[in-house]
This record gives sequence, C-alpha cells and structure tokens, in this order.
Amino acid sequence: MSDKVYIFDTTLRDGEQVPGCRLNTQEKVEVAKKLEGLGVDIIEAGFPVSSPGDFTSVVEISKAVTWPTICALTRAVESDIKIAAEALHFAKRPRIHTGIGTSPYHIKYKFNSTPEEILERAVGCVKYAKKFVEDVQFYAEDAGRTDNEYLARVVEAVIKAGATVVNIPDTTGYCLPSEFGEKIKYLMEHVDGIHKVTIATHCHNDLGMATANTLSGLMNGARQAEVTINGIGERAGNTSLEEVVMILKSHSELNLDTNINSKKIASVSRMVSSMMNMPIQPNKAIVGRNAFAHSSGIHQDGVLKNRESYEIIDPKDVGIDENAIVLTARSGRAALKHRLESLGVNMEKEALDK
Amino acid sequence: MSDKVYIFDTTLRDGEQVPGCRLNTQEKVEVAKKLEGLGVDIIEAGFPVSSPGDFTSVVEISKAVTWPTICALTRAVESDIKIAAEALHFAKRPRIHTGIGTSPYHIKYKFNSTPEEILERAVGCVKYAKKFVEDVQFYAEDAGRTDNEYLARVVEAVIKAGATVVNIPDTTGYCLPSEFGEKIKYLMEHVDGIHKVTIATHCHNDLGMATANTLSGLMNGARQAEVTINGIGERAGNTSLEEVVMILKSHSELNLDTNINSKKIASVSRMVSSMMNMPIQPNKAIVGRNAFAHSSGIHQDGVLKNRESYEIIDPKDVGIDENAIVLTARSGRAALKHRLESLGVNMEKEALDK
Repeated sequence: MSDKVYIFDTTLRDGEQVPGCRLNTQEKVEVAKKLEGLGVDIIEAGFPVSSPGDFTSVVEISKAVTWPTICALTRAVESDIKIAAEALHFAKRPRIHTGIGTSPYHIKYKFNSTPEEILERAVGCVKYAKKFVEDVQFYAEDAGRTDNEYLARVVEAVIKAGATVVNIPDTTGYCLPSEFGEKIKYLMEHVDGIHKVTIATHCHNDLGMATANTLSGLMNGARQAEVTINGIGERAGNTSLEEVVMILKSHSELNLDTNINSKKIASVSRMVSSMMNMPIQPNKAIVGRNAFAHSSGIHQDGVLKNRESYEIIDPKDVGIDENAIVLTARSGRAALKHRLESLGVNMEKEALDK
Repeated sequence: MSDKVYIFDTTLRDGEQVPGCRLNTQEKVEVAKKLEGLGVDIIEAGFPVSSPGDFTSVVEISKAVTWPTICALTRAVESDIKIAAEALHFAKRPRIHTGIGTSPYHIKYKFNSTPEEILERAVGCVKYAKKFVEDVQFYAEDAGRTDNEYLARVVEAVIKAGATVVNIPDTTGYCLPSEFGEKIKYLMEHVDGIHKVTIATHCHNDLGMATANTLSGLMNGARQAEVTINGIGERAGNTSLEEVVMILKSHSELNLDTNINSKKIASVSRMVSSMMNMPIQPNKAIVGRNAFAHSSGIHQDGVLKNRESYEIIDPKDVGIDENAIVLTARSGRAALKHRLESLGVNMEKEALDK
C-alpha cells in the first residue's frame, strides 16, 4: 500500500512574486485551470493583502477551479487573515496559510521579539484563521535554521490551536538533505498530535538541493510537497513539481504516490515558462530541451540497443514524443545509421566508416 | 583539520558533448585557462579518439595549462588509450580516464557480455593505461545501477591493477542521495586498498539531485567531485561546480575544503554560458540572474534589516556585486524607501503610504 503525497503548487504565489513573472488575473486563472488538469491537490493562489491584483486573482481562481483546495497566504496579522478569508469566499475548499518566522534571525532581527512572544503570535494567528475556515495551514518561516526543540514546541502549539497542515520551510535553501530529513524525523517523534495533521515541506533551491531536501522530508514523514512548475520562485526558486513527481514515479520502492498526471507535465511547463517569461535552461531536469537528448556516440549506441542503457524515464511519461538522438562531433556510426534509416537511407559498414 | 575535496571539471568533455555546445580548440584553451585561474584541480580536456578536434584540443590544453592535472577520456579499448596517451604528451600532470559499464543494462544490452568478462576488461584497460602514465583513473559506468557487491569486486580489482582514482558515476542520474551515499560507504568499508586511492563521484541531474548525490558521496568518503560549470552536460547535465563549492563553503561543519577561488565563479559561469550557447535560467542556484534578487515585500524588509534574514551566501563571495532589491507588485514600503534613498530621495511615512 502506497501513501499519498499531496502536491501543493505555489507557482501563482511564490513563483509569481519573482521579477518579471507577473501575470494578470485572466492569465492566473488559465494557469490555475491547467494545474487542476494536471492533478495538483492544493493551489496557492496568492497573498491577498499584498495587492489588489492578488486579492482579485484569489477570488477569480476560487470561482474557476472545481476540486483542488485553494489556499491564500497571510502573515500572522489579523487584517491579513480577514482579507484572505474574504478573497476565499467562493472557494469550494478554502485554506488559509498563515505563519511567522521562527529562526533566531527572524525572531531577533526581523521582529525584534522573543521566542515566547513568537509562539503566542503563532497560536493567535491559527486560532484567528479558524474563525473563518476549517482548513488552516501554519508555516514556521525559516524552519530550516530553527532549533529543532523550539520548532517542535511551536508545531505542537499550533496543532493544539487547530492547524490541519504544518509547513516546515527551508526558506533560505540552507539545509543539507540529511539535516532536513532529521528535522522532519525529530518533529514526527517529538510532537504530540503530529499524526493527526499533515506535515509539509517548502524548500528553496539556493544551494541546488531543494528537490533532494523535499524528498528527504517525504522519506521521513512529510506528506505534502510545496512546489512550483519549472522550480520558479524567489531567488534560486522552489522545488520543481516535475522533479518530485518523477522521482516518486520512478522510485516505486518509496511507496509514495501523487495524483499528478505526469503526461501533462511538458505542456504545463511550456505554458508557465512562456507566460511568465522564465526561460527553462536546456539542461533542466525533466523539462529542459536536452533532458532526453543523447549526443555522445557511446550513449547513442547504448540507447539504440536498449533504451534503458541511458534512460530512466520514458519521455512519453512526461508528454514528450520521443528521445532525441542528435548528431554532433562525438556521435558515432550507430547514430548516423539510425538517422539515415529514419530518412529512408540504408548504408552498410564500409560506406558508414567513410 | 579539513579534508581536501579535489574538483575535477568536465565542462570541456561531458559539457562540450552536448548539442550546440561545440567549441573550437582556441576556445577550449581559453576555457581551460579560466578553469586553471578558478583553481580547478583536474581538467578533463576531451575524449581524444572520438574526433580529431578532441585530440588537438587535449594537446593544446596540455601545452597551455600549468599546474592542474590534464585528463583524457577513453573506453576500455587499447587504441583509445594509446591515442589518449599521445594527446597527453605535453601535459605536466597527465591522467588517463578509462573504464567500462558495470550495470546489468550495460553488461547485457550494450556489451552482450558477462560480469566476469567485464571485470577482466576493467583490469586490462587499467594495466594498459599504466604503461603510459602513472595517474590512471577508472570509471565504472552506470555504477549508480550496479549491484554494490559486484561493484566492490571491480573497484578492488582495478585498484590492484594500479588505478589511482576510482570514479563511481551515477550515469543515468537515477540514485537517491541516501542510496548513493550508501553505495560509497559500502565501497569504503568493503574494498581492500580503497584508502590508498581517491574515490570520485560523477553524478547526472536527470531527477534534479546531482548536487545532493555528490554531497552524499563526499559525506561518505569520496574526495573528488566531477562537475561542470553551470551544470551543463549530457541530457539534464552534470553536477554544478558552483553548487558543490558553495555548499562546502557555507557548511563549514562538514570540514571539507576545495581549492576554488569562489570570487571567480560568476565570471567563469558567464564565459561558459556565452561561448557554449547554453543560457542559464534566472532561477539557477548561485549563478542565475535572480539567485540573489529579493522581490517580495516581506523578504525585502527582512534583508534590509539584516542580510542574513534571507541570504545564506554573500553575493560578493561568488563575484557578484550586491544583492538586488527589485521593485515588484509585492514589494512593500521598506523596499520603496530603500530605492528612493539610493536615488537621493527621502520620503516619510505618510508620503510612502500614499
């Protein structure tokens, strides 16, 4: 029996807050419907208090989307929460995502506060959000750099206050996978009531390990992965939806499934890239132009003999028609022969050698 | 006391074999000299038997570069090795990199062979290479999908045959970090003589975890990381030099150092991207245009109060002048005030609110 991993897509919130990525409401609704078709469980639709455009987008996405949960972000501030609840009025499954920074950097420099005061504010914002919706997700911002013991106290307190999902973000992308996994494990083992709620990961890619950190979180008990299409997002971006989904799909020994229809990945990826003006580099995993392109002679020969020699994912599984055997300076006879055959030319050994 | 991790750069071999990335000899020499300036320990300069251009490039790079080891790739084929040795004639520190596939996929489908026969060929190619150079690196292609017990036998045999470095590639980018780390640990614990040689990682990014796999290998005893600038390379590319270097630099608790002058990273990255026509996506870790750009109001306010709130690397450490506070729809008062001040305008609370 597999466990389900909930896919929480924040392309329209953490992704859209990036320089040059801004979308209008109509475009956001289009992306949201595409995400619904892809099978995303939760769509983070915006941060309603931050701008009138965000407010309107959450309203319109709530109306347009049928089954996914619609989530709106807030700070641990009552007016934020009230406005988020208003924006979610038409959502069939509304969720408020509220929270506060818990690391020493945030407590001291950002809030000029104390751990006890932050704990109180955390509990307060969850309780206030519960007045408006049943489904309240709490985030402990910069949890990646928060001491595990204090973090466990905060998580336990917000669960008691009614949180249904608790998000453990590595906000600065600092954690090593082993360290992030240990953090989730520590919480699973030390927090009363944690098995009644869903633990979420929200990893950033500053050191290039967002995907591995997310996976490490899932392997240690988290069951919601917060991701974006193409890994877009603040600075070096968020965990890529396509990477997490294809890891779980190609490593069946993990016994973790998602609701994503992977065959739609390539098309959603292209749509988001072009609408948001965020080019995908050719060597991007899963969705880059070269992700399934074999160019060296040794590799081409291997792939032509048996696809699995160099390929762990069938490109069709992510909606790409076929692998590409590209002729380059390092291609060999096998690739040349293959290309000629596909062009209807048969050539024998000597002619090929020549 | 820190351990040294050797940085083996394969931008000019695994990177250059990608569609559209081809460089001429003069350009390759320029890149090699830039890599030398960056502090790379070993430069893989090409695959001499694969094309006359590759042969010439290895010759010219060997002449142009002073202190890094120059490495040339071969298959487990005597003529490959002989030609590589010729190409390395002028290298001050020559290394031949030879090897063969060890996974069931490679043994059965690619070579139509048996594990025993492959083991013999592995030993044979190392012994043959030793006739030409002292420094012989062996690769067990697709080690990521090779059974650990068989892999240990191969590694032990090639060490006995004289290999100085043994490379454990995750050729298809399939491994999970925990799994890849376990593999290196298994070898460290089960192979006679392994502590006399250097174990190398060579990870591909097909599932987005090349960097994490490399790190996991280093944490379990590997001491050479095979990388490329910007993570370019076959399909979804190789491990990124810049990511591995900055992880080790920002996680001093790992006690692993490299010889890289990180302040030169941004400039080498731009040179390789433009020469090889391989654009870097804005959200690429460390070297992407947005890697140090803060756009949301919450983040901007935090960074302006204290850089460490949202930044784990000082952009100056990788040769970028400063973080960017970008005004977007989700920027707040703190960012607007900062921008106005940098333009010489002072604005007070009410005017700002307006």
